[in-house]
Amino acid sequence: LDTLRWLDGINAIEMIDQTILPNTFKYIKLKTVEQVARSIEIMQVRGAPAIGVTAAMGVALGATRFRGADRDKFFAHMDAVCARLASTRPTAVNLFWAIERQKRVMQKNRNKSVEQITRALVAEGKRMRVEDIAINKAMGAHGATLLKKNSNVMTHCNAGSLATAAYGTALGVVRAAHAQGKVARVYADETRPRLQGAMLTAFEMVHEGIPCTLNCDNTAATLMAQGKIDCCIVGADRIAANGDTANKIGTYSLAVVARYHKIPFYVAAPISTIDYSLKSGREIPIEHRGADEVRIVNGGKPVCPDGVDVYNQAFDMTPARLISAIITEKGVCRAPYVKSLAAARNA
Amino acid sequence: LDTLRWLDGINAIEMIDQTILPNTFKYIKLKTVEQVARSIEIMQVRGAPAIGVTAAMGVALGATRFRGADRDKFFAHMDAVCARLASTRPTAVNLFWAIERQKRVMQKNRNKSVEQITRALVAEGKRMRVEDIAINKAMGAHGATLLKKNSNVMTHCNAGSLATAAYGTALGVVRAAHAQGKVARVYADETRPRLQGAMLTAFEMVHEGIPCTLNCDNTAATLMAQGKIDCCIVGADRIAANGDTANKIGTYSLAVVARYHKIPFYVAAPISTIDYSLKSGREIPIEHRGADEVRIVNGGKPVCPDGVDVYNQAFDMTPARLISAIITEKGVCRAPYVKSLAAARNA
Repeated sequence: LDTLRWLDGINAIEMIDQTILPNTFKYIKLKTVEQVARSIEIMQVRGAPAIGVTAAMGVALGATRFRGADRDKFFAHMDAVCARLASTRPTAVNLFWAIERQKRVMQKNRNKSVEQITRALVAEGKRMRVEDIAINKAMGAHGATLLKKNSNVMTHCNAGSLATAAYGTALGVVRAAHAQGKVARVYADETRPRLQGAMLTAFEMVHEGIPCTLNCDNTAATLMAQGKIDCCIVGADRIAANGDTANKIGTYSLAVVARYHKIPFYVAAPISTIDYSLKSGREIPIEHRGADEVRIVNGGKPVCPDGVDVYNQAFDMTPARLISAIITEKGVCRAPYVKSLAAARNA
Repeated sequence: LDTLRWLDGINAIEMIDQTILPNTFKYIKLKTVEQVARSIEIMQVRGAPAIGVTAAMGVALGATRFRGADRDKFFAHMDAVCARLASTRPTAVNLFWAIERQKRVMQKNRNKSVEQITRALVAEGKRMRVEDIAINKAMGAHGATLLKKNSNVMTHCNAGSLATAAYGTALGVVRAAHAQGKVARVYADETRPRLQGAMLTAFEMVHEGIPCTLNCDNTAATLMAQGKIDCCIVGADRIAANGDTANKIGTYSLAVVARYHKIPFYVAAPISTIDYSLKSGREIPIEHRGADEVRIVNGGKPVCPDGVDVYNQAFDMTPARLISAIITEKGVCRAPYVKSLAAARNA
């Protein structure tokens, strides 16, 4: 599953439209910065690493759309491109990390021609995609060491191929461990309100031939109480320097019930998801989304009456104390995370 | 909101069709035992106390449909009626309790005419409906004493008017407490897969003018961590003698996260929901339902791919140790429940 790629011939991004899976598998072409920004906002692409690569390619796409050779005008144009892309979603830090990385490319090449800078941005966008896949494979190898033979693994939302350029973070660990005979079955939380567990994770697992059971989020605790779950692995949208982790709403709930049942709870994320500038998770900006995501399920009429308020916080914050380990491409980090995450960054 | 009633003129049951709320508010008439049984199976009526009253009236309806005066044939007919109604759903004990109560009416009147026995069954069915409302109001008064002024109350599924003849169990407590200025807001878990929180509880709260916020089940823990929830109140489908409680799937998860956040977790249920014959919750039969309840949300195409297993356990079991109090019509019971529930029965 290639989530997205750069089309050299026409300087455009091609990506799977994740809003119509699993019923329709279709690639769409994004040809303008506005289309790229919208694809992030309406979640045709989602998942922190995938958003990062999309944003990096979006910056490159913006550069290719500039007409002329005036560097000052080019940089002003690129400021607007970066600002638009940065405005799409607040929580996943990979978005800002990717844009910053492209800004550094521009800074480094600031005395070159517009054409040369543009070429550098396109190359960097493509490089970040390839890097992302390599990072995920490294993460998978490290993470697989944590699992015992025939484990039943619960996951939440989708931290798979579709959340990255390919291979996945949490599901990358599952893929690597499955290849070693360590995964008997994946339990996928359906992950309300957007149902990424049902629509994306289950789709990936069926595609991959890994046995998968779909469950409502509220059933995770009961499956644990029945001894059906050996560990949980989730992805992350932003991790503070102390290990506190923002991820899809419901992650915190899962971590709490896992702790109650003494089940290991792992986070898998690349170093680019760690925001070392934040001391704790309290500083992570958390996105709230519209009521209709909850009210309207799978199209059709609202499932609730008019006049009821809806609370739709898209991410939550799991404190480091509930996390058994954070799996990165540099290795497995354990508490105290301030030290282990800093060491991973410098490894 | 009158969930159901007996129509004397035509000897039929009239009930709100709860599968089409909140968009369509419609009463349906049930004229055969098979229709009554189906209405329970497909959840046009649900909620343990409402199922109980429906079954009692269903037995009465079955009696009115018998033609002739042969008592032996009548009792054989009634055995089949009771067996059909008892086969509809396994977990809510009120179903069996109601049928047993009607069997005792038959037993007591066994030497009377078919017509007289039938009259007694109809009278008992109607009496149980009136009793249920009185019980809920008593429960509400007892439960309200547990709440402080301006409480934010979280509830799961629907244990309201629609789960009973009227007034509700958990929402009966909310109604009584709200009238005393003790309820600032109700947080309704949407309650996957059937969304009774969105479709029924939110509907009741809007109807009643009680401020209500709808949240995905996986968001409850985060609302608690933010200090937004003062207590949880839920209903029950069957309570063992030791206080272990079977209720809608997700109740156990909610109880676990409430305990983690040191938030009181209350169960409100009539004595008829307590199954004194069961020592612990492990003996409670738990219903599993079809995969399509999870796969198909609000009609339309499945939200998950073919080839994925679905785990759809309709109820879960919350151990007594996670329950702060059980509110009955006889008063508030505290641990150890073996003693307090037995005392309530005899009060």
